[in-house]
Amino acid sequence: MLEALKQQVYEANMELPKRGLVTYTWGNVSGIDRDKGLFVIKPSGVEYDELKPEDLVVLDLDGNIVEGKLRPSSDTPTHLELYKAWPGVGGIVHTHSTEAVAWAQAGRSIPVYGTTHADYFYGDIPCTRGLTMQEIKEAYEKNTGLVIIETFANKELDPLHTPGVLCEHHGPFTFGKDAAAAVYHAVVLEEVAKMAAKTEALRTDAERAPYYLVEKHFERKHGKNAYYGQG
Amino acid sequence: MLEALKQQVYEANMELPKRGLVTYTWGNVSGIDRDKGLFVIKPSGVEYDELKPEDLVVLDLDGNIVEGKLRPSSDTPTHLELYKAWPGVGGIVHTHSTEAVAWAQAGRSIPVYGTTHADYFYGDIPCTRGLTMQEIKEAYEKNTGLVIIETFANKELDPLHTPGVLCEHHGPFTFGKDAAAAVYHAVVLEEVAKMAAKTEALRTDAERAPYYLVEKHFERKHGKNAYYGQG
Amino acid sequence: MLEALKQQVYEANMELPKRGLVTYTWGNVSGIDRDKGLFVIKPSGVEYDELKPEDLVVLDLDGNIVEGKLRPSSDTPTHLELYKAWPGVGGIVHTHSTEAVAWAQAGRSIPVYGTTHADYFYGDIPCTRGLTMQEIKEAYEKNTGLVIIETFANKELDPLHTPGVLCEHHGPFTFGKDAAAAVYHAVVLEEVAKMAAKTEALRTDAERAPYYLVEKHFERKHGKNAYYGQG
Amino acid sequence: MLEALKQQVYEANMELPKRGLVTYTWGNVSGIDRDKGLFVIKPSGVEYDELKPEDLVVLDLDGNIVEGKLRPSSDTPTHLELYKAWPGVGGIVHTHSTEAVAWAQAGRSIPVYGTTHADYFYGDIPCTRGLTMQEIKEAYEKNTGLVIIETFANKELDPLHTPGVLCEHHGPFTFGKDAAAAVYHAVVLEEVAKMAAKTEALRTDAERAPYYLVEKHFERKHGKNAYYGQG
Repeated sequence: MLEALKQQVYEANMELPKRGLVTYTWGNVSGIDRDKGLFVIKPSGVEYDELKPEDLVVLDLDGNIVEGKLRPSSDTPTHLELYKAWPGVGGIVHTHSTEAVAWAQAGRSIPVYGTTHADYFYGDIPCTRGLTMQEIKEAYEKNTGLVIIETFANKELDPLHTPGVLCEHHGPFTFGKDAAAAVYHAVVLEEVAKMAAKTEALRTDAERAPYYLVEKHFERKHGKNAYYGQG
Repeated sequence: MLEALKQQVYEANMELPKRGLVTYTWGNVSGIDRDKGLFVIKPSGVEYDELKPEDLVVLDLDGNIVEGKLRPSSDTPTHLELYKAWPGVGGIVHTHSTEAVAWAQAGRSIPVYGTTHADYFYGDIPCTRGLTMQEIKEAYEKNTGLVIIETFANKELDPLHTPGVLCEHHGPFTFGKDAAAAVYHAVVLEEVAKMAAKTEALRTDAERAPYYLVEKHFERKHGKNAYYGQG
Repeated sequence: MLEALKQQVYEANMELPKRGLVTYTWGNVSGIDRDKGLFVIKPSGVEYDELKPEDLVVLDLDGNIVEGKLRPSSDTPTHLELYKAWPGVGGIVHTHSTEAVAWAQAGRSIPVYGTTHADYFYGDIPCTRGLTMQEIKEAYEKNTGLVIIETFANKELDPLHTPGVLCEHHGPFTFGKDAAAAVYHAVVLEEVAKMAAKTEALRTDAERAPYYLVEKHFERKHGKNAYYGQG
Repeated sequence: MLEALKQQVYEANMELPKRGLVTYTWGNVSGIDRDKGLFVIKPSGVEYDELKPEDLVVLDLDGNIVEGKLRPSSDTPTHLELYKAWPGVGGIVHTHSTEAVAWAQAGRSIPVYGTTHADYFYGDIPCTRGLTMQEIKEAYEKNTGLVIIETFANKELDPLHTPGVLCEHHGPFTFGKDAAAAVYHAVVLEEVAKMAAKTEALRTDAERAPYYLVEKHFERKHGKNAYYGQG
């Protein structure tokens, strides 16, 4: 079932250690088949060098396990809420990558300081509010998803134009049209987080790139008249 | 004698350079067989790429060498005191890993800024007081063990719930149920130390994660109702 | 056509990921044949591990594609302006390397703090002014080239003596007598940017190296009486 | 001539790129045969991956080339002065390693913040004064050696107990009983420089390790009653 998607999600998961984004098992990738309403996610706590495509778990959008012998990632309810709220999203990644976690632990959104950021994220990369004690006790992972959705709603952000978020005191989630794109955005977010921290170290009153430069770079790669790449 | 334990401790030692935690010979791992009351430790000053399982030294809890041709790690008396004081601990690691040493040299405990930390350490990772001149002259390595034990007693910490410590102006020791777990905690401590330093660079008034988030993450991995991993 | 130059520019491009200067496709190298008035540049958005010498695009100095099936780098108009303005330059590199981008995002020139810098860059590495909204909308990449030329003119800099520049809120361009030299300077610039940031972290009132030390080091490698290397 | 020494110095040179201490050709190692009064040094500007033992240059202590087809390192007069002043030194290393250069560019000695430092350097690692314009014009590399010797004389330091120094606005030199030991100290100095910078980032009023801890660690490895290693 969903063999092609499982292979894609498997490869996307394996890209995380290859790109230096995970220590041990600290990360997971999922991808969804919108027609069937089923998504595929990494099993919980399995080492990457032991992971096989057939270990991946298939779930429906009610959270029922449809296929798989292993327990799915403990972050599955977060992925689930995002898939339900955002029909354009085809893949989701969660990591504890160092630089992104530092911003999340500082409770700060990443300001758009330059074109590397603007090439993939249209504006600041937001940080959520912290969950309340009640929200954590009640349904931690589900409410993590809901607070991400709330953040994007409040700031009127499109998850495909700003394909990443920081959960306060926790770490990043990234999104994309499919699992590979979400991993790509996880790599970019980590690099952009590092550049922004270094920028502030060099200048305490660092200023965002002007909006017309941000717009230009985003449009050049993603707009109607995009002219980056081989089209 | 203790061939299986020696193999485990050997592999745990070899994990240190593989994980980037040691320069040259600056680190050592031990593991204990509680039934026999014997522990196995790396020999002093031997290069990792020349280390063999049969080079490991076996000692009893009075510090007598029971087997082995080489001199044991100069930090052996520290390991010994910790094994005597903490019956639940099965493995101990000492390194001079960069980020953890920086906190030790600053004489600071690592605040629990987020979930990566809380997943493995239940609260701040403590820094000991410095040893007095008298304590150093008298029995440096033994007293290093005693001041760690004093720190955990004063703060009412459980070494299996907070499986690491920083010795002031020196470096980290980590613990676990066995040698492999202690190495795992050494890797996590180094990563958490790096994240915390970067968090403070981004926000001078950074705040700890709220206690209910710390609790949630620790319990999710280690509590009675843990649901992370394949259980 | 221009097979030798294409091979050189291909190898110079491949040096970027090898030296850790690019993530994904974020960089490009070109080289020029001054006699023929043609330059060779990386195609846009092609992954480095899929790049082949025959993928490179050949253009004339009016920006016409003379050979190549792929679209040239979106930064081609910047390279073009620099080749037209600076007859001594034979190769150009653009990257988003982390440390250089941090200085560019901070809008700061890199002060000449020591001999590593002075060995290759005769004085501070300049940062341009930002482009105006008008300049960006009208002809972004061309005007990026023009603002670099303006910066060197205003500061009376020679692009072969100061073979690099930071574009504000964007990133570095480096130059050289050929593509390989420009890549060499990209590596040096990244290293020098890192050293300078670390210098300021250690001393907020860090001072530039005295001019006679800068002169000495630059002359020892590049002056008439250079005595570094095998001459 | 001096085949064994050439092989040692060759291997010590090759250790520099392997340990991440050099970019391109920015470093050199020499070793001396005290009985013959001859020393062996890397040729100037030769790439490490092209270096062969027979490329090394043999000089006497008047600076005459005794053997070798290539020009010796441009820093040869610095090595020469140190060998003449310090009869116990058998090997010398110069690099532009990142962290050590940052301290040199900041014009600061590295405070002895902990045991990693004290295990190999007995007290702060000194930074020289800058050379005067006159000293640079007259005999730059020779005077670099003389200012190092002056620094050690003024501070009453023993180059085998404090086997490293930072030249202001330039970079580190390290020493040892032979070339391999000098490289070992170059690796330690870089690591200790990094740890010290990170310590200060965590605590602006960081304090040196107490003298009795420094003494203990140095003695444990190097004193008469040393008990580290297999002795």
